[in-house]
This record gives sequence, structure tokens and C-alpha cells, in this order.
Amino acid sequence: MHSRSYITVRYAETDKMGIAHHSNYPIWFEVGRTDFIKMFKTTYTDLENAGVMLPLVNLNCHFNLPAMYEDELIVRTWCIHMTAARIEFLYSVKRRDEDGKEVELCYGSTEHGFIDAKTFKPCNVKKRLPELYAKLNGNIKEI
Amino acid sequence: MHSRSYITVRYAETDKMGIAHHSNYPIWFEVGRTDFIKMFKTTYTDLENAGVMLPLVNLNCHFNLPAMYEDELIVRTWCIHMTAARIEFLYSVKRRDEDGKEVELCYGSTEHGFIDAKTFKPCNVKKRLPELYAKLNGNIKEI
Amino acid sequence: MHSRSYITVRYAETDKMGIAHHSNYPIWFEVGRTDFIKMFKTTYTDLENAGVMLPLVNLNCHFNLPAMYEDELIVRTWCIHMTAARIEFLYSVKRRDEDGKEVELCYGSTEHGFIDAKTFKPCNVKKRLPELYAKLNGNIKEI
Amino acid sequence: MHSRSYITVRYAETDKMGIAHHSNYPIWFEVGRTDFIKMFKTTYTDLENAGVMLPLVNLNCHFNLPAMYEDELIVRTWCIHMTAARIEFLYSVKRRDEDGKEVELCYGSTEHGFIDAKTFKPCNVKKRLPELYAKLNGNIKEI
Repeated sequence: MHSRSYITVRYAETDKMGIAHHSNYPIWFEVGRTDFIKMFKTTYTDLENAGVMLPLVNLNCHFNLPAMYEDELIVRTWCIHMTAARIEFLYSVKRRDEDGKEVELCYGSTEHGFIDAKTFKPCNVKKRLPELYAKLNGNIKEI
Repeated sequence: MHSRSYITVRYAETDKMGIAHHSNYPIWFEVGRTDFIKMFKTTYTDLENAGVMLPLVNLNCHFNLPAMYEDELIVRTWCIHMTAARIEFLYSVKRRDEDGKEVELCYGSTEHGFIDAKTFKPCNVKKRLPELYAKLNGNIKEI
Repeated sequence: MHSRSYITVRYAETDKMGIAHHSNYPIWFEVGRTDFIKMFKTTYTDLENAGVMLPLVNLNCHFNLPAMYEDELIVRTWCIHMTAARIEFLYSVKRRDEDGKEVELCYGSTEHGFIDAKTFKPCNVKKRLPELYAKLNGNIKEI
Repeated sequence: MHSRSYITVRYAETDKMGIAHHSNYPIWFEVGRTDFIKMFKTTYTDLENAGVMLPLVNLNCHFNLPAMYEDELIVRTWCIHMTAARIEFLYSVKRRDEDGKEVELCYGSTEHGFIDAKTFKPCNVKKRLPELYAKLNGNIKEI
């Protein structure tokens, strides 16, 4: 189970090389993560209201092809690993070529720690949000 | 009395036109505002810790010349108007040309309301932070 | 005639005040401009390919209410003034409240000069792109 | 041999978690890269004028501690690997704690391909820019 997010490259996201600047991909990954979490009838805002935050621990991006202004991108998001303290997401950013075939521009992953929004200390999401934990944990992609 | 902030244009701040994207100027104005407030032996963080925030109400920018990647910019900031509820800043962004003469790339202004960080309701900074109010109010630029 | 653009506020667009940072509005206006131009069966990319660019000359924003993370925004864009050398757009950014009623968060305008992509000198779009000029000029909003 | 870049966290760089958003680190790495290249009496702009660009192929970031608004960061940049077609940089982002001791907030690396600015095809920088190649190649950090 994965989410699909649709993004049109903004002019402000391009750089003088004429392509979308690489710093946008982590932001697009985040859009994918937001949509992935929405699939479970919750939102990242609900998470934060429940006092849980998901700061980034690790970020990896591999760039194959540039994204251009006005390109219509498809961001797919999977959850590939989860414990009571950590969660890892995988992302694939694609665009359709002239023949309508999807080509991958970038793929990457992010690893997050579950922390308490007040103390910024790690928290056990399995205990804090057992239902969400169960839902997410039931949708880990085998890789 | 005004502050001077020094900014080098980042690659990520350029767009496919080859110039710094206009959405960076409000961010550079904010850097100027931060430095202006620091002149009064306080910081914007102190303000927020005192429970006061300064959300933007109005923004105006006038663009004369583009800023290019690696340009070294000088942002000057003035306070041009202040009441117990509102404050207005004026900004000038310049660069030195080949002859070392300063040329203005952009000027603009921002108007902010003083609000309570908790209630997001307007607050009277003259009562809440009388010392800072007096300091700022003593440095209004005549225009 | 105006365009409607739909934007969901990204986490990266928020700031420590907990609201969408004001520097995002010029970017959202640009998304609206892109969609407005698309209505005329052309794209901003076509414009640039035709050797014409639209750098910003003036930017104005008035902020009424903050936009929050995950808010679904509607950006409406109108062309309110046009000459052979200049074009001005008006924008309104709204969100639906609990009752489904639209509330305006921000409105603003941008004024652009038509310039030659090579020389960066002003160009007469009425002569350079007579068809587009006629189309746009036939859709000026009376204000 | 490495470069030191000094960055003060901007308000616009924070997010609703109250910390600098992770998408800023690749931008700060780029600032570091710019300063690293300047040490060799050349600039990234010179590179582009020579028809060579350095698009990103891989990006890795590891986050230890958050950066806060107004934090004064030190970005150190090293070149850790180089061939005629590829170059890899290592970055460390630190901040001084209360005792003046440096603490690392984030470290990461970026790998870039040398491409021709016109064709976007890989180019041999050893042949195209032999002097710069020699200079950079003489300053690889052993790791």
C-alpha cells in the first residue's frame, strides 16, 4: 500500500541551471509523507495534536533526471520500516515522458524518530498511539 | 539609526531566469529586521519568549535590478512608524557595481501587528514591553 | 475571467509561529499566474521559449488571516491591467471555514515588465506576441 | 584543507516544530560548497561561465540535533573524492553550546557529476578545466 501525490513544479522551485533545485525533493517527499499518513484516516496535524512529532534523522536522495518547470510529478510514498521509536519512508518521484511512459527522476528515503512534542524526547508510539502504530505497521512494504 | 545586513545570494535562491527569485526579498527583509532589533540589545527570540509576536500585515516590494548568484548584498533596515499596536519597517537592498558605487536593487516595507503569542490577539506592546517600545520609538526614521 | 489554483499548505512552508510563512504567498501567486496563463492555451514556458520573460516590478500583499499546515487554499488570479510593456495581476487566497464558507487569508497584486529573454531589455509584447496580447487584453478585470 | 561558512538561521527557515526545517541543510551545504570552491581562486559562476555545471547525483544528511532560529552555524566543507567525471563533498554543520564548545547538528555529503552546460552531457573536467582539476585533486581529504 502506498500513496500517490501530484506536484506541478513551481517557477520558484527552479534554479539558474534551469531545473528544479534539489532542495525541493525533501519538501516533495514531505508532501508524500503527509498524503501517506492521510490514507490512515489521520493527519500529521492529528499526530502533533496528540503530542507526537516526527523529526528527521536521516535523509537520502538519488537523482537520475532533472525536473523542469511546469513538469507534473507523481510522488509515491511507502513505509518500509517501523519500530516503536523509528519509522522509515521510501519515495519515488516520476514524470511521464512524451510517450506517456513514467520515468523516475529521483528516489530517496527518510528515517524519523518519534518524539514527544513537549519534551523533544523519544517516545514509544506503540504505547502512545497504538491504533495508528498498528495501522502503519500493517502496511510495511517488503523490500 | 538603521541596521546593515550582509547577504550573499545563494544558488538555491536563483530561478531559471538566472536571477534571485523575488520571493527571497521578504526573507532578506526579515534578516534585516532581525538585525535591526538586535541593535536594541534584544532579539526577536526574546520578543517571542516575552509572549509577543509580529505577524506581517502588509508587504510591499519594488524591484529595480535583479540580484545574481554570489552577489554580495547590503540590506538596510529602518523603523519608519510605530504605535502600541503596529510597527512598520523600510528596507533597501543594494549591491556594489564595478566602480564600487552602491546601486539599489530593491526597496520595500513591511507592516506588522503586535500580537499575543498564545491568544494570537493584538496586544499593546507599549504596556507589555515598555522599555523596548521606548527604544524603538526613539529611533523612528523621518520620511 | 479568472483562474483557480488549489494549494495544500506544506509543512516546510510553516514557520515557528506555527503558520505559513509570508514569503510563500508570492510563490502561491506565481502558481496562480501560471494557471491563469494556461487558460489561454499557452504556458509561461511557451512565453520564455518565444524569448519573452516577465520579471516582477512591484509586489503587494495584504494579510488578513494566517494559513495553517494542511490548509487547502484556493488562489484566484485576475489580469487587471495590461499595456504593450507591462502587465498587472490581482490575487486572492481563500480557505473554507468549518461552515464551508470561504474566508480570505490574503490578497495582493504583482506588476511585471515584458522583457527580451536575451537582452533583458523591455520588449513590446503587442508586436512580439500579438495573439497572446489580444487574448490577455480581452480578459482584463474591471476594478 | 576545508572551508568554513557562517550561517545565521533565518526565521523563514524554521517550521512549526520550532526548528530549522531539514530542507535547509542541502542549501547550507551548497553555501559551503560555494565557499570551498572560492578557496581555489575560482567561483561556481566561473565554472558555469566555462560551460561546466555540477548537478547533484546523491545527497545524504544525518541529523543529530536541531538548529534554532538565530543560531549561528559553522558549515565546514571538504572534498573527499574526485574523478574526471564526479566530485564528492563532505559537510559538517556545528553550533557552539553555552560553554563555547562546538556541537555537531548535522553532517552529510553530496556527489556531483560534471556536465556540459549546453548539452547536459557528462564532461571530462580533467581535460576541460585541468588547472582547477589539479587544484581540487590536490586537496582531497583522506577518510
